Amino acid sequence: MSLLESTMSGIAPLDAAAMQRARSRLDSLLKPPGSLGRLESIAEKLAGISGRVGGEIGKKTIIVMCGDNGVTEEQVSSFPRNISTLVAETMLKGLSGVSVLAKHAGAGLVVVDLGLDGDIAGGHAVGRKIRRGTANMTKGPAMSREEALRAVETGIEIANGAVEEGAGILGTGEIGIGNTTTASAVIHAFTGVGLDEVVGRGAGLTDEGLHRKKEVIRRAIGLNRPAADDPLDVLSKVGGLDIAGLAGCYLAAAARRVPIVIDGFIAGAAAVAASRMHPGVRDFMFTSHASAEPGTAAISNALGLEPMLALDMRLGEGTGAALAFHIIEAALKIVNEMGTFKDIGM
Amino acid sequence: MSLLESTMSGIAPLDAAAMQRARSRLDSLLKPPGSLGRLESIAEKLAGISGRVGGEIGKKTIIVMCGDNGVTEEQVSSFPRNISTLVAETMLKGLSGVSVLAKHAGAGLVVVDLGLDGDIAGGHAVGRKIRRGTANMTKGPAMSREEALRAVETGIEIANGAVEEGAGILGTGEIGIGNTTTASAVIHAFTGVGLDEVVGRGAGLTDEGLHRKKEVIRRAIGLNRPAADDPLDVLSKVGGLDIAGLAGCYLAAAARRVPIVIDGFIAGAAAVAASRMHPGVRDFMFTSHASAEPGTAAISNALGLEPMLALDMRLGEGTGAALAFHIIEAALKIVNEMGTFKDIGM
Repeated sequence: MSLLESTMSGIAPLDAAAMQRARSRLDSLLKPPGSLGRLESIAEKLAGISGRVGGEIGKKTIIVMCGDNGVTEEQVSSFPRNISTLVAETMLKGLSGVSVLAKHAGAGLVVVDLGLDGDIAGGHAVGRKIRRGTANMTKGPAMSREEALRAVETGIEIANGAVEEGAGILGTGEIGIGNTTTASAVIHAFTGVGLDEVVGRGAGLTDEGLHRKKEVIRRAIGLNRPAADDPLDVLSKVGGLDIAGLAGCYLAAAARRVPIVIDGFIAGAAAVAASRMHPGVRDFMFTSHASAEPGTAAISNALGLEPMLALDMRLGEGTGAALAFHIIEAALKIVNEMGTFKDIGM
Repeated sequence: MSLLESTMSGIAPLDAAAMQRARSRLDSLLKPPGSLGRLESIAEKLAGISGRVGGEIGKKTIIVMCGDNGVTEEQVSSFPRNISTLVAETMLKGLSGVSVLAKHAGAGLVVVDLGLDGDIAGGHAVGRKIRRGTANMTKGPAMSREEALRAVETGIEIANGAVEEGAGILGTGEIGIGNTTTASAVIHAFTGVGLDEVVGRGAGLTDEGLHRKKEVIRRAIGLNRPAADDPLDVLSKVGGLDIAGLAGCYLAAAARRVPIVIDGFIAGAAAVAASRMHPGVRDFMFTSHASAEPGTAAISNALGLEPMLALDMRLGEGTGAALAFHIIEAALKIVNEMGTFKDIGM
């Protein structure tokens, strides 16, 4: 049995009894029933994941998957491709957006080179390069099916490793110029939602650039004809190494029964891919923010999950996931620390 | 000159030059321009408030104004009126929702008895009782104009005191059974938005209870005829001591140039009242979450401010404000800690 198969076979449903105990505890707390809204449903879901009511979240880790995308040859991004490696280096120096927000949240970062063109200088990146960037998906598949599988399984290994090192919650992030293009293609391929509703300006495209980006995706889909019911087919033909790697992280988190937070648009596309491999994986996911990319709604609909934060962010990297940790921890603390009607003799 | 007058005359515009410097700094950071969305606009606004770019937020303090409401005689709440004092005691014991979330945010609580029926046993409440609950607003004004003024000025004094003790950001919270009724009346009186769009189920009313609540507000408005252009008239006739006290907090925060976070529906009604006393006060306010009460939209529209969190909470107490602190601090850390394109030689 492959690592992917064994991981998927290890995904079990939420613990309904623990969720029921969490619900009882929440209803016993000193507040009108349900008045803490989604903090309550988060606490219930955490109980279903861990099998216990309350407790500590433990170490927080954001996994950042990095890979370049051949489709950047088609001028779909306002940034040059070599920026990806530079952004990874910046992240490892503590200077990027997610570096700052992870520190603010008390979370660690694991930066994984799955397929950058360049080599990350200095810092402590995890080197797991599968290839130097994908191929241009408008001229053929972005990568082979075997490479996509390797990326997914590397994601599983990285997430398993983080859990073995004590992570009690995972966040997802990514680096890869051109990856709003691949993410849009993946979401379109899986959900059938039209490109006008999915494709956005990414890091800052002009009207003309946005038009070109849609055309490029249309050509890539037309040429490669990814099969919506075959996730590895979609990931290999119009996806990216970062997206495939993150899909593996979600599967591993579910198998290890650790909550995992979706960052924004690209991590959301990976979450949709993982949910098409195993629908049960959604029970272990939390969304963070509604990205300013228009396709966020298609992701929420596909996963049946609503974002917690309305901040119009579109940086990616894991920045939204980092901010969501504080809210998820708050939900757990409510269960742990709030008093009950019984405590005050009612 | 009264304390209210001197406070209002001390409210000056945002520092446009500091905001421009913050904008330049944000645009120099290692990210596509604007990609951190509202974190960037929060950082700009903080610069406009403090006059400096970045820096530390300092001590965080949530002020919780407590008062009972005579209108509870009309069965507008699913909880009995004596719960207010009990909730305040619970808060001081660290067992209430906001106690837990304030601790999670590293914030302190100041619990002020402006007009509870009962007396808070134990704990460190600030005793500033103006009267033991307001009168039933369906039979006459909830309080006299002088009492409303005293409540506003007490709010000013409390907020001034918190700032003098080092608070660099304030949050607002309240306790008072029946205060979604008074808050709805206040919002309706100021904005003219219809009761069907403003009045919600509060702590958990039935359909019949909701219908009665609207009728009660209609009667109170019809009898008292509060003048929309006279904030103290509205606050005294159909408001509450908690709402009036919080209105004073917003005014003081603006005069002291300290950011202040609106909690939910009731604190939002007080924010609308403060903005009708002095429109400039809005520049110093941040919203936190979109309360599950339907009137939240009327508040957002009246203030021109959008909430950051989508958590369907409706507990009040300051719980939403506590969660928003983390995001506001994140905005400041972005400015302080992220690297620039220059840092990496670009």
